[in-house]
Amino acid sequence: MGLHVLKFGGTSVGSLKRLERVADIVTTRAKTHQVVVVLSAMSGETDGLIELAHHFTKSPNSRELDVLLTVGEQKSVALFSICLSARGIKARSLLGSQVSIRTSNDHTCARIENISTKSILEFLNAGEIIVVPGFQGVTVEGEITTLGRGGSDTTAVALAAALKADVCDIYTDVEGVFTTDPNIEPKAKKLSYITYDEMLELASLGAKVLQTRSVEFAKKYKVPVHVRSTFKDVEGTWVLEESKLMESLVVSGITYTKNEAKIVVEDMPDRVGIAADLFTRIGEAGVMVDVIVQNVSKDGTTDISFTVPRSDMKRAIDVVNQSKDILKHGRVVGDDRISKVSVIGNGMRSHAGVAAKMFQVLAREGINLQMISTSEIKISCVVDEKYTELAVRVLHDCFGLDKIDAREVNDFK
Amino acid sequence: MGLHVLKFGGTSVGSLKRLERVADIVTTRAKTHQVVVVLSAMSGETDGLIELAHHFTKSPNSRELDVLLTVGEQKSVALFSICLSARGIKARSLLGSQVSIRTSNDHTCARIENISTKSILEFLNAGEIIVVPGFQGVTVEGEITTLGRGGSDTTAVALAAALKADVCDIYTDVEGVFTTDPNIEPKAKKLSYITYDEMLELASLGAKVLQTRSVEFAKKYKVPVHVRSTFKDVEGTWVLEESKLMESLVVSGITYTKNEAKIVVEDMPDRVGIAADLFTRIGEAGVMVDVIVQNVSKDGTTDISFTVPRSDMKRAIDVVNQSKDILKHGRVVGDDRISKVSVIGNGMRSHAGVAAKMFQVLAREGINLQMISTSEIKISCVVDEKYTELAVRVLHDCFGLDKIDAREVNDFK
Repeated sequence: MGLHVLKFGGTSVGSLKRLERVADIVTTRAKTHQVVVVLSAMSGETDGLIELAHHFTKSPNSRELDVLLTVGEQKSVALFSICLSARGIKARSLLGSQVSIRTSNDHTCARIENISTKSILEFLNAGEIIVVPGFQGVTVEGEITTLGRGGSDTTAVALAAALKADVCDIYTDVEGVFTTDPNIEPKAKKLSYITYDEMLELASLGAKVLQTRSVEFAKKYKVPVHVRSTFKDVEGTWVLEESKLMESLVVSGITYTKNEAKIVVEDMPDRVGIAADLFTRIGEAGVMVDVIVQNVSKDGTTDISFTVPRSDMKRAIDVVNQSKDILKHGRVVGDDRISKVSVIGNGMRSHAGVAAKMFQVLAREGINLQMISTSEIKISCVVDEKYTELAVRVLHDCFGLDKIDAREVNDFK
Repeated sequence: MGLHVLKFGGTSVGSLKRLERVADIVTTRAKTHQVVVVLSAMSGETDGLIELAHHFTKSPNSRELDVLLTVGEQKSVALFSICLSARGIKARSLLGSQVSIRTSNDHTCARIENISTKSILEFLNAGEIIVVPGFQGVTVEGEITTLGRGGSDTTAVALAAALKADVCDIYTDVEGVFTTDPNIEPKAKKLSYITYDEMLELASLGAKVLQTRSVEFAKKYKVPVHVRSTFKDVEGTWVLEESKLMESLVVSGITYTKNEAKIVVEDMPDRVGIAADLFTRIGEAGVMVDVIVQNVSKDGTTDISFTVPRSDMKRAIDVVNQSKDILKHGRVVGDDRISKVSVIGNGMRSHAGVAAKMFQVLAREGINLQMISTSEIKISCVVDEKYTELAVRVLHDCFGLDKIDAREVNDFK
């Protein structure tokens, strides 16, 4: 009798009726496995709580915000345990502090440091279903923390890792991970499996299926993750370690994000350490920089371009302008009408020519590439925002993603 | 610089605007005192949570119900701490488990066993306002518990006792304790002070100002309690130890309750132990018996009358009827159209004739006394429900409660 961790997102527990549906799934699973359930807050709950806090201030005290926000998941786990108990099933909620899920003390974005499995295992072995609120933890001093948006995924995967679970099921409102956004490309296909590395690139590039940190955990501890639908009983997408049994697709997905802006700092003096100086200042202002491109210098100066979250563009430009005396740069130009389109594939490691093919296809459509950034298994291009959908569709088509057969992973089930 | 505990009830924190009002009161107090704030859930919140649980079952798992219900107060304290922090005031919420407020493990009606004051005192001495959720505690095993309806009063008084606070202010939606219900007798007067014993009788007899257990705590640890209005800045009613400085009113209040029913068991054989047998059976069925009256026997049998909560009348009658083979009693007659009217006064201890005067006045109005029960400082009569308001008014009048001057307690302030 193996141990499974089942996580249900906000829409999956969004109503009392849906909690009954979740209870059906959990009850069935509990017939053959030990089960730990991780729940998010009911959809809308967390936003509602944040709205209440924002009545008093735009930047609520982060310690108290964590005390407030954990209320949502606590409500879910208590109601769900009541629901299971009412069916005559032995269930027990254990809060982050009761498990305990120990985290760093970075309020609103804490990191899990340690999970004690003693009490969970004890109750599991007594035949109980354990219901744990996602998103929350506790510091060594007993302070309540939260793991940031999407943190329930991380709670689930971290618990699966700590408990050495056979599987971590992530139940959600989509059927799995698709080759691209089906709203843009109706021919998008559900992937049967995907590697941790591919999923990491997808997650960090804007596909909102899994929190990035949960995938890092899954990769580190080799937890098989199964992303699947709460509302339709079909196989979803397995997120797994790369394996010889898998056929590596050269490209397995196309993603895009529209929430970045581009900033160009013109005519920077080309001297050692000036880029470090620039990005230290931006970092100290709390702005996360994503893509950075610097061209070779001409006449002793160079242009540096980079992208930041769209909401931080103004702040970043201000920071750069305030440093003009030191950096001696020219104009600073911001553009928030851009998007970043990326192709991702584990097979790129061993296949040349993916970048060239990508650039050709985009050029053929008259789409200018403003910035390019690559990793081992990813190529991202910054383009004019208006071309986003067109770029996604032509790339999906040119890499044949509408024609792939579902990759089979029977050996993992 | 003394230490004050301020407790605010559900209507006092019932909206974000009202939380601002509470913040005004607390901020002002904090200029001259160390302050511990105890908050209830926002009004309607707890009922809403119970309703959610009742969607699944009429009798939710009590352990999980406690996990669910504590959410309400947690939300209040987090929001309020955010509100204070936004004003630049150092505030810190401490949950029942963080304080810790240790209780018995009787879920939904736990009793406070011990309060650790170490962390509260530490933070108070660092200049912080401490905000504690009422109603919740934690067992020695770390299980979350609640103290029953009105439990926030008990949290506040118990904290005041543990911290040796100078005062426990109970802020509520009424101005204090009145000589009777002003909705029935407009001439009812607010009492300046009342003894713990008087308040205990009032609380247990249906005046919903303070939870009975909170008054027991206050009496035991001699905590001066000040019941007052959140919305009107006037003196309320002090609940204090009896003192020679006070003028003892013979009668200080008239109360009534309509939530009981009367049961008469006719023709019980008058043998030793039969009453014990009867009430053991009723007690085992979970029914709380209040007034009990047994007349002297006639022809070897006697009638026993008693009152129970109205909602338990049918159950109690069933229990008695099921025991007919053993108890050999006659008819069992229930009546849920009764009310219990009581006069309360510390001065009764030393004044004779209060009962006689009460019975005369009621007789003069043609009100038949169905049952009578007395304690040292209380006389209760069960009467036909339709006479309730009349009885309250004539008693209020005959004991001169509309004419009393406010009792002064300047020496306590």
